[in-house]
Amino acid sequence: MQAHRTFRHTLRVAYADCTVGNHVYYARYFDFLEAARGDFFRTLGHSFQDLEDEGFAFPVIHCEGDYRIAARYDELIQVDLWLTSLARIRLDFGYRIVTDDDRLLFHGLTRHACTDRDNRGVRIPGVLVEKLTPYLAAPPDRG
Amino acid sequence: MQAHRTFRHTLRVAYADCTVGNHVYYARYFDFLEAARGDFFRTLGHSFQDLEDEGFAFPVIHCEGDYRIAARYDELIQVDLWLTSLARIRLDFGYRIVTDDDRLLFHGLTRHACTDRDNRGVRIPGVLVEKLTPYLAAPPDRG
Amino acid sequence: MQAHRTFRHTLRVAYADCTVGNHVYYARYFDFLEAARGDFFRTLGHSFQDLEDEGFAFPVIHCEGDYRIAARYDELIQVDLWLTSLARIRLDFGYRIVTDDDRLLFHGLTRHACTDRDNRGVRIPGVLVEKLTPYLAAPPDRG
Amino acid sequence: MQAHRTFRHTLRVAYADCTVGNHVYYARYFDFLEAARGDFFRTLGHSFQDLEDEGFAFPVIHCEGDYRIAARYDELIQVDLWLTSLARIRLDFGYRIVTDDDRLLFHGLTRHACTDRDNRGVRIPGVLVEKLTPYLAAPPDRG
Repeated sequence: MQAHRTFRHTLRVAYADCTVGNHVYYARYFDFLEAARGDFFRTLGHSFQDLEDEGFAFPVIHCEGDYRIAARYDELIQVDLWLTSLARIRLDFGYRIVTDDDRLLFHGLTRHACTDRDNRGVRIPGVLVEKLTPYLAAPPDRG
Repeated sequence: MQAHRTFRHTLRVAYADCTVGNHVYYARYFDFLEAARGDFFRTLGHSFQDLEDEGFAFPVIHCEGDYRIAARYDELIQVDLWLTSLARIRLDFGYRIVTDDDRLLFHGLTRHACTDRDNRGVRIPGVLVEKLTPYLAAPPDRG
Repeated sequence: MQAHRTFRHTLRVAYADCTVGNHVYYARYFDFLEAARGDFFRTLGHSFQDLEDEGFAFPVIHCEGDYRIAARYDELIQVDLWLTSLARIRLDFGYRIVTDDDRLLFHGLTRHACTDRDNRGVRIPGVLVEKLTPYLAAPPDRG
Repeated sequence: MQAHRTFRHTLRVAYADCTVGNHVYYARYFDFLEAARGDFFRTLGHSFQDLEDEGFAFPVIHCEGDYRIAARYDELIQVDLWLTSLARIRLDFGYRIVTDDDRLLFHGLTRHACTDRDNRGVRIPGVLVEKLTPYLAAPPDRG
């Protein structure tokens, strides 16, 4: 596997994220992934809002997660994000969520379609592909 | 104060509603009020979706809540709802949330504007006023 | 595959579940699965609260979901739930979420460990195994 | 009214915060207030987690909010926080949420009891009172 770039988003666990037992509720990790994706696209210069204004959306069509250590209230956590696949009308993100001292809390992935305003699959804009490629963990599958 | 009708919405507390300390997170009570309002309007024959399709929205412009006993995971709770004010372009709801054995958990209110698609205040539709009036706790303030 | 029982939990989509674009936010489907699991265990006669009081917990260690049609505000939806694996200290649930007229919105799974108060894996109580078995989609993997 | 200090917490609106209509869901503003309070206490040197470990909790007993302009996806917003009352076993926070260019989105307040592990009202620790006082908008009501 070739070297690739990783994007890091930092966040603080709030009471709103937690549930009974003093740890983060399992579905909230997907909120964390979404916040990280939003931060990543904005940093690339194409916020989801910009893309939506241009007629593109990236709905989640599949997601999964593995839970290791439970994150707790007030912890500072890091969401690391990269691409595991970048196809013509689809892209996959990989994620690792770690504590500030790099213990693994969660890893997961989300798969997104690229769609137009009528929810039809469309080719990911070339300018975006160019900016995403350095974050791709393996040679692109552009079939 | 004259007699008035009250609408009751029943729900079950889920892990998603709770936080550290094994009780419902304070902001989630407002989710419960919203679910009760939606159920109420649907029962009146005008779901918020129907109203939105007809060009009306009822955004919250003020809300408040008082917390008594904390609701807990898996509790069956009752949200009682009525109107405390019904004006030309504004309406106020009162709420009590109680346990199945009628202990008071929370009471609160929400104030809503009636707006059109351009977010301008408009008169509440007459057919809706008629159906809402029996739930009004005091003589209507129709100024 | 042998015949098996399925548990059905019904719910109504609220504004709190939705996001930009007038559809349910992707992570909220996992809230729906959790509400269905809670309802299922309670119906079996062993609520998660009861089990927790007896020293057992069932933390999610893996989950995944596939999104088909987006659920929308005010829709009445059905969460169907069954077991896809029932091992000594681990159990997997399968789920389908469908509209009232049986169009598939989402399917997914959650994997749970059975743990004690110190978060160590323990054998699923026999009385629970007996009640869960009819919902198992395939011959039990009791390895 | 004497001069007082204000604490500012910055956050970015995520899809998880929004609902139908492309704006923040009304209850989520209270999540924002909670994140700001947590940040504030941590900055004072007493995180809620520290305080809880020492046996103190600050449950919300009342809250209210007024909605002006709806916050939207991806907006960077500022939560300004100060104290409006600091009594023996109770404290009130005032909040303003503004856009990056200082347009008012929301203002509100939360009232908190100071309690011990048995949920009984106890005196707010003196060291905390000292640190909170500069943020008090009016002469303390220490009755």
